[in-house]
Amino acid sequence: MNASTTATPEARTPASARPRTMKAVVKGAAGPGVEIREVPVPSAGPGQILLKVLRAGVCGTDLHIYTWDPWSQGRIRPPVTMGHEFVGEIVELGAGVAEFKLGERVSCESHVVCEHCIACRTGNGHVCENTKILGVDVNGGFAEYVAVPASNAWRAPGNIPIEVQGVMEPLGNAVHTAFSGELSGCRIGVTGCGPIGLFAIGVAKAAGASQVIASDIAPYRLELARKMKADAVIDVSKQNFVTRVDEITEGRGLDGVLEMSGVPQALRDGLAALRNGGRLSLLGLPKEPFDLDWNKLLIFKGISLHGIIGRRMYQTWYQMDNLLRFGGLDIRPAITHVMPMERIDEAIALLKSGNAGKVVLVPWGQDA
Amino acid sequence: MNASTTATPEARTPASARPRTMKAVVKGAAGPGVEIREVPVPSAGPGQILLKVLRAGVCGTDLHIYTWDPWSQGRIRPPVTMGHEFVGEIVELGAGVAEFKLGERVSCESHVVCEHCIACRTGNGHVCENTKILGVDVNGGFAEYVAVPASNAWRAPGNIPIEVQGVMEPLGNAVHTAFSGELSGCRIGVTGCGPIGLFAIGVAKAAGASQVIASDIAPYRLELARKMKADAVIDVSKQNFVTRVDEITEGRGLDGVLEMSGVPQALRDGLAALRNGGRLSLLGLPKEPFDLDWNKLLIFKGISLHGIIGRRMYQTWYQMDNLLRFGGLDIRPAITHVMPMERIDEAIALLKSGNAGKVVLVPWGQDA
Amino acid sequence: MNASTTATPEARTPASARPRTMKAVVKGAAGPGVEIREVPVPSAGPGQILLKVLRAGVCGTDLHIYTWDPWSQGRIRPPVTMGHEFVGEIVELGAGVAEFKLGERVSCESHVVCEHCIACRTGNGHVCENTKILGVDVNGGFAEYVAVPASNAWRAPGNIPIEVQGVMEPLGNAVHTAFSGELSGCRIGVTGCGPIGLFAIGVAKAAGASQVIASDIAPYRLELARKMKADAVIDVSKQNFVTRVDEITEGRGLDGVLEMSGVPQALRDGLAALRNGGRLSLLGLPKEPFDLDWNKLLIFKGISLHGIIGRRMYQTWYQMDNLLRFGGLDIRPAITHVMPMERIDEAIALLKSGNAGKVVLVPWGQDA
Amino acid sequence: MNASTTATPEARTPASARPRTMKAVVKGAAGPGVEIREVPVPSAGPGQILLKVLRAGVCGTDLHIYTWDPWSQGRIRPPVTMGHEFVGEIVELGAGVAEFKLGERVSCESHVVCEHCIACRTGNGHVCENTKILGVDVNGGFAEYVAVPASNAWRAPGNIPIEVQGVMEPLGNAVHTAFSGELSGCRIGVTGCGPIGLFAIGVAKAAGASQVIASDIAPYRLELARKMKADAVIDVSKQNFVTRVDEITEGRGLDGVLEMSGVPQALRDGLAALRNGGRLSLLGLPKEPFDLDWNKLLIFKGISLHGIIGRRMYQTWYQMDNLLRFGGLDIRPAITHVMPMERIDEAIALLKSGNAGKVVLVPWGQDA
Repeated sequence: MNASTTATPEARTPASARPRTMKAVVKGAAGPGVEIREVPVPSAGPGQILLKVLRAGVCGTDLHIYTWDPWSQGRIRPPVTMGHEFVGEIVELGAGVAEFKLGERVSCESHVVCEHCIACRTGNGHVCENTKILGVDVNGGFAEYVAVPASNAWRAPGNIPIEVQGVMEPLGNAVHTAFSGELSGCRIGVTGCGPIGLFAIGVAKAAGASQVIASDIAPYRLELARKMKADAVIDVSKQNFVTRVDEITEGRGLDGVLEMSGVPQALRDGLAALRNGGRLSLLGLPKEPFDLDWNKLLIFKGISLHGIIGRRMYQTWYQMDNLLRFGGLDIRPAITHVMPMERIDEAIALLKSGNAGKVVLVPWGQDA
Repeated sequence: MNASTTATPEARTPASARPRTMKAVVKGAAGPGVEIREVPVPSAGPGQILLKVLRAGVCGTDLHIYTWDPWSQGRIRPPVTMGHEFVGEIVELGAGVAEFKLGERVSCESHVVCEHCIACRTGNGHVCENTKILGVDVNGGFAEYVAVPASNAWRAPGNIPIEVQGVMEPLGNAVHTAFSGELSGCRIGVTGCGPIGLFAIGVAKAAGASQVIASDIAPYRLELARKMKADAVIDVSKQNFVTRVDEITEGRGLDGVLEMSGVPQALRDGLAALRNGGRLSLLGLPKEPFDLDWNKLLIFKGISLHGIIGRRMYQTWYQMDNLLRFGGLDIRPAITHVMPMERIDEAIALLKSGNAGKVVLVPWGQDA
Repeated sequence: MNASTTATPEARTPASARPRTMKAVVKGAAGPGVEIREVPVPSAGPGQILLKVLRAGVCGTDLHIYTWDPWSQGRIRPPVTMGHEFVGEIVELGAGVAEFKLGERVSCESHVVCEHCIACRTGNGHVCENTKILGVDVNGGFAEYVAVPASNAWRAPGNIPIEVQGVMEPLGNAVHTAFSGELSGCRIGVTGCGPIGLFAIGVAKAAGASQVIASDIAPYRLELARKMKADAVIDVSKQNFVTRVDEITEGRGLDGVLEMSGVPQALRDGLAALRNGGRLSLLGLPKEPFDLDWNKLLIFKGISLHGIIGRRMYQTWYQMDNLLRFGGLDIRPAITHVMPMERIDEAIALLKSGNAGKVVLVPWGQDA
Repeated sequence: MNASTTATPEARTPASARPRTMKAVVKGAAGPGVEIREVPVPSAGPGQILLKVLRAGVCGTDLHIYTWDPWSQGRIRPPVTMGHEFVGEIVELGAGVAEFKLGERVSCESHVVCEHCIACRTGNGHVCENTKILGVDVNGGFAEYVAVPASNAWRAPGNIPIEVQGVMEPLGNAVHTAFSGELSGCRIGVTGCGPIGLFAIGVAKAAGASQVIASDIAPYRLELARKMKADAVIDVSKQNFVTRVDEITEGRGLDGVLEMSGVPQALRDGLAALRNGGRLSLLGLPKEPFDLDWNKLLIFKGISLHGIIGRRMYQTWYQMDNLLRFGGLDIRPAITHVMPMERIDEAIALLKSGNAGKVVLVPWGQDA
């Protein structure tokens, strides 16, 4: 049975029979923590679709919002329903939506873009100047229902598990980062083995990297890196990254590095471990500005450095779809927890502890 | 033991003790056939190395020279020792050669380029205007010894079988063709399952293509295509290529096609099966000019078509090296015969019959 | 005064005061010729804008439709208002259109694309599988008014003449063709000096080609090529293209060729005149399939061949905007005639004669 | 008369008649300053050519060596003849040199590369791991004669002034930086108007940038920037770079920035002034490490940053040749001083003062 083409009972339920309110994880006020609130069920505006949420992933950004860090204080305007990674079933089609049917299961791009700025008009929607992010700037998917622009929906590949369908957004970050340079036949480093780093290991392998070397400081995460099929892992709390890469690659160095940690030393090490002329793609967000020996690490080596945000809309999704459906990409080892959405505080705590890969939430009334 | 770093007895033999003559497969005269002749052992000139040949591959080009087809008549100036695919052990270093040691095992790039034309000076040595090809324009490797420019030698990866080391030149054709466009996460067609087409299937898979669809008309070759891990094979003597691709890709079409057959219909089918905006890389040499519906197949679809010859010098070799050593590329299923060089007529006949993949020759006095 | 920001009286006229009917050049029936008909003034549907047409260009495609050639017979469903190149002033905004104001002057992309196919979703809208073309598949701009999707409109650069604003669509073909490979510091050939070829000469020069060599068989067009600042022109009715290019480039050959003629020999000559590793971009539509010596012209030379259609949406427009506003691109020498739309038969005859560059039409009631 | 093809009396002088010693600007000892010494005339070793130096440019690197800064202390091993930018006439051909004739005038690539490392073997010789630089690591061209590898020589374009032929090496830096991203139809910023920055302005314009905006703090250099045809100049001691760029580009920002100053704020400003998705190429060498707000300036904007060193060997030279011979590039306004090599101290002082563009030296016994 193809999950994406068969309408379920839910989808056949008339809107009038749908509940008026629902449970949602809401950032209700400026300050730490979240609340589980009863809020109105949204409806699908023009060009939108309404989804019954099936699974949702918890992201480092959610942790920032939860702890109310400086970035959150500058960006979030409570109350807002959190959650920007999710899969759902279409239960309502807004005016003008013709490309989807009720009952289809879709994953969602979280960037809602303006389609009018130069970036949007030249195929760079991922850096739209007017981006609004689901679950950050507008209500997201940590809820029973969520309304999203139909153009943000991607039919979930039918042959993959529902928890994977639920985290295609962060997987897309990994694909975008990895695909921002050559992979085929390359030696690739992945610095930082949080969920997106772990995904990136699997992506690089499935996309034809000949050798993938991953680093982190947490044994738990390095073990997950091995399960994601890294050819070698480096515990940088104990070993020098550059020296080890030099040994593993027999002095040739890395062709590319995917920086997933935001840690200054990881960026410096990644650059130092690149062969001359290599590329480093930078997704991990540093906590604050930090310095670099530009001459030695970048200029004299002729390095290309790519700042990465979001996903190419929708080239990244097409690539990801191919990798998941046909390319043997399996990210399940990196999804370490599936739990009820109700237990959001526990999920956040898990993330904080570092003893988790990706944590997936199941909305109220559904079995994992 | 690393094959590439240990000098064998042969390499330690002083030049004075080397025989003065050797056996070689020589195109001795204008007309069909070849001869096995006793010829002088060459010596390594300035910048050259002398190799004791260990294995050599037979190529379609050798078949052309053997049968003395029109192309051969225009190009070959007999007598010339044939053979442009081989691996050997260095037994003599010419003046000025410092980057190699006696006893190292090396595979060889067959294009001897001028290093002075615009192509050579701008990183496009593979289309050097003054290319001389080993075994075609100058004496090649169907012999006990061959002298080659040191800059054409590539240390043979130590972890792969010697018969694979012997055919890195045609494997490089496959890598160059495949790598002339995107592979990662792509749906790739390979039209024509001769040896290079078979190699290309393995290359595309190892380099991250999500789906590889191969076509031919010979059941023997389609079976080899399956062994090389094609996701689907199409017998175009029985099935319509475009229709089958459409079914297999669920209407999306191919992202790229590697045309390895030189058959007009294969090019037309390949173009028709591409998604709009796709690319087709053209290595197979058609026997004669043929027509195309340019509008329908190329312009309206926004296709990019790449003419491919040789191997990027030496980026292709670096990529190939990574794929063979670390990337899980195994081309052994496509090497169907290993036989004494003495039996060159039989090898040529095998090639002609279509009931062979790559045929590898073992020089006199060595065991396969 | 900036033409694009000041509402004219027309734009301030309420819709109720607008006439109910208008004049239009209509392909009224299967067969040669066109009619000038009185037809209803369209209105702006959801997401559309209504334009008062100010200028419209006549294209080779219009000539095909006029003469009712085989392509037209297969594509056109009369009656349809012709005209796919035009500039107009916005006089009505459809529901949901927020990014434009009444009175703005806009040029139009003629491809109305689906936004849902793989091509559209991956930044290749110009090869959308479901493209409808204004003036071909739906009513176009050879009329007093035309309704178009707001997303197809591009604010006309204010510092350029209105007749140039009227032909940005075909200029975009030239930009797309030229920009499909490197131009900066390159030696570029342009084969065929019809209007788009002439535009391409100017584009290549303004975009940094070091040398532009143009060819045609018509002295009238070669003279226009000189006015567009070609560094050299070749009358291929009298001179051998390849020989002349060889002389002009001192044996180096061309880095790129823009094929604008659709003539088989022009493609063959263009390929032959390329340096090894060069690129040829193919916009000109051949009348029928024709053959090529693939080995000699494409494969042995390592050429890349790009099929070009339409304009990148909307990267091409952004590039064109920069070239026109800041980059010194002036295409006026290629616009040889401006005449009343009423005289469409004369305009078509001019085009047919070859004694015209681009012909621009002025709708009823306006002064040129 | 073509300067590059006519042998002068000097070239016809037999080697035996050449003087045994010559004057040279030598870094003779660890510490500030240079000496003019009488040293032996070198001879052309195998693969080398001997040049009678005609003109030589003074570079910022020479200033570093002169003042004996920390970089020099770590790199220079006195005594060494300085000078890495020069043009000369071939007066002797070493063994094996066949591609040049006596009397030809050639400019020189200053990077002597190993041709064996991965960088060299994959078309990235400019980042060869074993680079030796003429005038830095081995004797250079501030002398009457200099011996260089024949493969480093480039026939000087005959239609350009001799002082321009003398500074093709630093011009190549500008070309490499500019050409490391798109230029055609782009809006390009150049931060820093030293000699290479000034060259880059001319290069970007000649290569098809639609708008070039240059910045510096020295009125003298900004005036030269205007003479090099910058469309706008910004005195960043008085105006905010980002604000001014925003005004000049009407809010669109820059497509690319060429960072030529090594000043931290220039890099930060350059990144801030880029449109999202833009590129910055970094040639200017910072004096020491400095910090960056990676998130705001690089990651959230999706910027690509390229470290640039040297020149692509020899693609950059081919591009430069085209620009100089055919592309209308004229860098003479940036060459502000031509003086006898004897006056090296004065030349260095001029450079230090900031009141100079490029300074060119004329060896002993020649007229400027």
